[in-house]
Amino acid sequence: MQISKGVEWAVHAVSLMAALPDKRGLSAEALAHYHGVPPAYMAKQLQALSRAGIIMSTRGAGGGYRLAKAPLDINLWDICAAIEGNAPAFKCTEIRQNGPCATLAEDCKTPCAIAAAFLLAEKAYRASLQAISLADIAHLILKDSSEQHLSAIMNWIDNAATALPVNALR
Amino acid sequence: MQISKGVEWAVHAVSLMAALPDKRGLSAEALAHYHGVPPAYMAKQLQALSRAGIIMSTRGAGGGYRLAKAPLDINLWDICAAIEGNAPAFKCTEIRQNGPCATLAEDCKTPCAIAAAFLLAEKAYRASLQAISLADIAHLILKDSSEQHLSAIMNWIDNAATALPVNALR
Repeated sequence: MQISKGVEWAVHAVSLMAALPDKRGLSAEALAHYHGVPPAYMAKQLQALSRAGIIMSTRGAGGGYRLAKAPLDINLWDICAAIEGNAPAFKCTEIRQNGPCATLAEDCKTPCAIAAAFLLAEKAYRASLQAISLADIAHLILKDSSEQHLSAIMNWIDNAATALPVNALR
Repeated sequence: MQISKGVEWAVHAVSLMAALPDKRGLSAEALAHYHGVPPAYMAKQLQALSRAGIIMSTRGAGGGYRLAKAPLDINLWDICAAIEGNAPAFKCTEIRQNGPCATLAEDCKTPCAIAAAFLLAEKAYRASLQAISLADIAHLILKDSSEQHLSAIMNWIDNAATALPVNALR
């Protein structure tokens, strides 16, 4: 059971976007550079976040990504699902319907006890991530950082962020 | 994020073993046949369950697998971890230590807020599976099955199960 690196990158990228000043954005290249990761793979995560309505972008020169919602309205499960999809990790292949003592298909209208137990565990996993907003994460990152480090980050953002034409945001 | 089919197979296999009479076992071939799945891949799951101390086996003609513990002392996380391993699904690659505003390694002695949130969700996932024993699953399967179906299963077990030489169990 593995979560792709893309989820880690996506959460870090939106955390940085939470610190963006109004009407400014960051290009995929800038976000990749900031996190020291390959631009093409970072761009892929940003496209997935964009499709999920978590971030928005303007294209072309001076374009960039920023949050499409307030940090309080984005939770960690939203981000994880944008990258990994919404399908359950436990895929029941209904093996109870196989073999010499197969359960009849008409008796399999609800998940078996085994599938139900794994789906319940996934519900607990999702609920735990849903309970943590991007605002919570941003708050914790702020709390854990020195003033000097925060000031370096804000300087970097100020230099790297593009000014977005607001009517071009989509 | 995906859990391998092997976990589904393993839980079904140990659920069937929970119905075995005393001192009898089922071969990998019989367990594969019962569940209508390929014997080689079923054997792989059984070896992993055996290594984890959940089941035990006797080899050779008349050999077979049976539970190594009482069903109350085996939980769904034990089985899942035996097959998938115990490593967290979220692998933090410490990208906070990359790039132009890298956090210093000496300031990264604890997981960042993002990694901590995902590890917390995994804890909730594991706790949910740990709360469900094989005895619970066996009880639910019994409750959901008709008398006729249960009798077919017990007949199949009676024909397929080998008699294990108790002093050969390991």
